[in-house]
Parts: sequence; C-alpha cells; structure tokens
Amino acid sequence: MNLSRLGEFGLIERIRRQLLVGRGVRIGIGDDAAWVENPAESFLITADLLIEGVHFNLKWTSLVDLGFKSLAVNLSDIAAMGGTPAYAILSLGIPASFATKNIDDFYRGINALARPSGVYVVGGDTCVAKNLIISVCVTGLAPRKPIRRDGAAVADDIYITGTLGDSALGLKLLRGGRTKQEPKMVAKLLARHRRPTPRLTAGALLGKEQLATAMIDVSDGLLQDLGHICRASNLGAVLQNDQLPLSVAYRALAGKDGTRHALIGGEDYELLFCSRPSSRDAIRNLSRRARVPITRIGRCVAGPGVIVVDSAGSKIALRTLGGHDHFKNQRPGRTRAGNPTLL
Amino acid sequence: MNLSRLGEFGLIERIRRQLLVGRGVRIGIGDDAAWVENPAESFLITADLLIEGVHFNLKWTSLVDLGFKSLAVNLSDIAAMGGTPAYAILSLGIPASFATKNIDDFYRGINALARPSGVYVVGGDTCVAKNLIISVCVTGLAPRKPIRRDGAAVADDIYITGTLGDSALGLKLLRGGRTKQEPKMVAKLLARHRRPTPRLTAGALLGKEQLATAMIDVSDGLLQDLGHICRASNLGAVLQNDQLPLSVAYRALAGKDGTRHALIGGEDYELLFCSRPSSRDAIRNLSRRARVPITRIGRCVAGPGVIVVDSAGSKIALRTLGGHDHFKNQRPGRTRAGNPTLL
Repeated sequence: MNLSRLGEFGLIERIRRQLLVGRGVRIGIGDDAAWVENPAESFLITADLLIEGVHFNLKWTSLVDLGFKSLAVNLSDIAAMGGTPAYAILSLGIPASFATKNIDDFYRGINALARPSGVYVVGGDTCVAKNLIISVCVTGLAPRKPIRRDGAAVADDIYITGTLGDSALGLKLLRGGRTKQEPKMVAKLLARHRRPTPRLTAGALLGKEQLATAMIDVSDGLLQDLGHICRASNLGAVLQNDQLPLSVAYRALAGKDGTRHALIGGEDYELLFCSRPSSRDAIRNLSRRARVPITRIGRCVAGPGVIVVDSAGSKIALRTLGGHDHFKNQRPGRTRAGNPTLL
Repeated sequence: MNLSRLGEFGLIERIRRQLLVGRGVRIGIGDDAAWVENPAESFLITADLLIEGVHFNLKWTSLVDLGFKSLAVNLSDIAAMGGTPAYAILSLGIPASFATKNIDDFYRGINALARPSGVYVVGGDTCVAKNLIISVCVTGLAPRKPIRRDGAAVADDIYITGTLGDSALGLKLLRGGRTKQEPKMVAKLLARHRRPTPRLTAGALLGKEQLATAMIDVSDGLLQDLGHICRASNLGAVLQNDQLPLSVAYRALAGKDGTRHALIGGEDYELLFCSRPSSRDAIRNLSRRARVPITRIGRCVAGPGVIVVDSAGSKIALRTLGGHDHFKNQRPGRTRAGNPTLL
C-alpha cells in the first residue's frame, strides 16, 4: 500500500503503533505536543536535518540504515555534551509514492538504536515532499555541568574513543566500486559508515564524573572538529599521527591514503575530548567501564592551530586539510566529507 | 553576499548574532547541543516541517512572513496544550544561491514573534538544499496537567478564540487575483494568513486554571480539528452556524461562500476547546484577561460526528466537508486547505 492510499492520519497511526511507549512519556504521538518528564531543572536539546540528494541517496542506502543513522547522529551530539539522550521528535517529508513498507523499514532502523539506547520517539510531523526529508530533534538529560567546547587548557591531553577513518574509507571504497576486494574487511568499514555507534556510555560517564574539559563528536573530521575545540578554547593542539587509533580493516585497506581518512574523513561519531594529565588513570578506568577503547592522541598547546607530528616529533605537511562545509564552494584538492553522508 | 561565499560557519555565526541571548539559556547556538533551564519536572515538545513548493511559495511569500509563521504554528501547538513556549530549535535547508539578506529577513520574522513571546532560538542545523526547508522544534513549560484532546464530556460547551475563516478567505482571494477590491479588507485577511497570532495568553491561562476539558488549535479547519477532539473523546458535537465568530472583513468579502471558510478553511491558529457549562463565567473572565474574544459555538453530544445547525436548529448539509490530509488524493468537490500554506 502506498501513502496516498493510507493518508496522513493512517500514517501517523501506523507510526504510533511501531514506537515503544516509554518511561517518562506522559503524552506521546497524537496530540498537539508531547509531554515528557525531566528529572532535573534543565535539559539538553539538539537537531539535525537530513535531505535526500544532499546527505543520502536511496539508491545506495537502505531505509533501515537511514533510520538508524538519523537517530545516531543526534544521540552522538547529546553524548558529546556529557548528557544522556531521552526523547526524540522526528519530522518526515515523504514522497507520496513511498510504500508503507518503506516507512516501516525506516522506523525499524530507528527502533534498532532507540530501544537499546532508552530513547523514545514522542512526536513529530509528517508531510508530502518531492524528496525524502528527515528532521530529528533529541532532548537529553544534562549532567551537573555539560561539557562545552571551550573548556580545554594548555597541557591538557587529547583523547578519542573507538577508531578513526573507517566510515570515510568505507564510503570511498563504495564510491569507487571497490567493495569486492576483502569483502569482510569492506563490510566492517561500511557498517561503521551506515550504522555509526554513538558513544553514549562514555559520554554520559565523562559528563557525570566531569573528567573532560572540552568535548565534541567527530562528524566533520578529526582536524576540523579539534579545530572547533581549539578556537573555542583559544589554544592549539599537537596530534601524534602514529597514535591515531585505526581498525584492522582500515589498516588493511587504506593503502597509500595512510591516516588521511582518520584525520579529515569525518562521520566517525567518536567522542573527541580533552582532559587534565592528572586524570589519565581515571580515563583508563572509564574506558573499561564504558567498554570502548579510548586513546590519547595528542595534547593542547599555546597558540592557534592544529598540527600533526610523526613519531620523531616532526611536523607533517597536510596538503589537503579539509573537512566539511555545506555552503563553501569546493576548491581543487579539497576533500569534501559529508555530515552525515550516505551518498 | 550569497551563502556559498559566507560558508556554513559564517552563516551560523551570522544567525547567532541576530538572536537574543535569553533567560534560561545556559548554552545556546555553537556547541553540540543547547542546554536550557526547565523549572518544572516535565516539559512539552512539538515540531513542524515546512517545505518550499508544498507549504509555501517564495514568489508569493516574503521571508519575513515565512519566519514569523514558521514559529507561530509551533507556538500555537504549545498553547493548545495549555503550556507556555520557551525554546525553539530551528533547522534550515537553504538553497546555495540564497543571499545573506534572505536569511536576515527570515530571522527578522522569527524575532518579530519570538521577542514578544519570550521564546529563544537556542540551536539547530543548517545545510544546503535545492528548495528551502524549515524544520522547527519548540519546547514549552507544561501546566500542572496539559490539556489533551480526549478529555471532553457530553454537554460540555465548545469555544473558539478570535475569528474563523480569515486566513482561508484571504488565500482564496490571493489565488484568484481578487485582491484589488476592498484593499483594506483584503489586507486584513491576508495579514491573518501571513502572520497568524498564536493565542499564547489564552492557552496558558486555560492550562493554568484547568478550565478546558479538551483543546486543539485550528490548523486543518474547524470541522476537521473538532473531529479530532470528538474521536479522541468518543463523542460528537453540534455547532451553531450563526454563532461562528466572523471578522468584519470576512463578512464583507465572503459573499456566497458564507461560513464555508470558517468551517473548513484551516490555518486559523485559533484555540478550539471544550469546557463545563459551569465554567461559563470563568471563560468570559479569562477572555477579558487574555484580551482575545472567546465565543461559544456549540456543545458536545453523545454519538459520533460533528453536525452544523442553523438558528432554527436544522441540520445544514455539508457537501464539501473537508480539511487537509497531506497524503490523500484529492477528490472532486473536496476543498484542500493547507497546514500551513503560504502558496
């Protein structure tokens, strides 16, 4: 059945039936607004807009993955403040030709992440559109003091969760039609691209224990996102190229790209944070409890800019310092990463 | 200057400078998420998605009006729960050819409503898009008990704030090119279409004093929105056609359309609510304090459906019972209202 037969109210009812009725949701889908509990005297709120043809292409991307990722990028933003995501509002612009199965698939992807994350979809808006448009807004519980971008100090350590570059390298192989070599390795990279894991436990623990002085999630690429922390905190950073955490699949398939995708690829949705050197033991301990690797990759220094050094401490020239800016014209030699990109 | 020269981060900075730094906003635009205060242990949240070519046409609509209306429709949803809007998250998909002036105009419209409403824009997302896409999410302070759609009881009175049908009649005259007859009257109708007034004070007072048993804002048309209350509350309604509040401009220009636009036009953004007959004095009093007319237009009855009667109590045949459904095919004789429509 397609949506023009189902109708808007039929669609809303179909969506409502697929969603969990959640803890703290006093009024969910079906009224003028949702009404949700909030145990603290403040909350966090973030939003992302994903547009077909700009952020994703339905020829390459399953709707299940798209649902998962649409939610993941927002949960990651809440984690990057040290908070815990709680409720999502999901607005969809849907082509009238869509089948109800497409919608079911999309919400299956949403649920695949919402359920284990303890997040409830409480409302939204639906309307017809030429291309699929996904707008997600997520609220979260704030820690006592959310972790901003501007709190880093000179001599702070710089850490990253998980591994870097998998998503961008996976996308490159996909675009180049090179997915048949080492299919298992490629599958691992593509899974990281299609279903990024927001680091919810690590983010919440860093917020609760106030161990990070500044934090951001890596969506535009390590160098660009570290640049945001540096500018906000009014300092610079030195990254150790040989310390960047790379997955087995990345090492196997990156070839002469080296650490390029780890540095500027983007869409890792790992947490990048700064912390006092006196907290090193506590960070190691937190890594175990959050069940995610956390790697020290550099330190904050006086003066502006991010530089990358090799194991001998020599500066590495970065010809293609990049990252993503939606509105800037592309310049030759500039790599354009996507945030989020499923093209 | 157009946006491709300004860049995404330049745009975000430009937007940030235009917005008020508000009460209760602990972290606004510029981090991974906003952090806002919430004095109660719960809050309301709602969202609307507006798409160029579906909900509005930039040939006919100024960006100032579009900004105003994008926020208005969301504030109206919070008012319809008896709450008070507090914070807005605003995601924009913007054509790369847009001039920065266009963006400034849009935010001028946002501010024209946000400022007197005490609402603060605290974040969002921006990206490039073929057509303009506006996604607004608003949170609000909840009353002790938000007013749902399902609380109406048989014998309750039915009330409406303000006047009905102005927006739809204005749009009809605009589409028909009939805006030169009675220009002052037409201007009044068009102002109601372009800059609807969310009934924030009336909504908040109805919530605070728990005087409404059920409430909704009229976006899809009186009959359709009253139908939502009736279905949710499991009852029916009788509307008195001669009691529908019509503006002077509407009476002057509706001609043989009669009350048609008041019944099914939509986009009035007036509050439609039910209340016990014992509350009539209290409603009159509330109307004075909220400085908005509130008119009793009918009553709730047993059994399903909404009927409209004339002054003699005879049922009026409604050949074109309508209202808006985004996905249903149009049938002959069916009027299609928009929610929200600036086409």
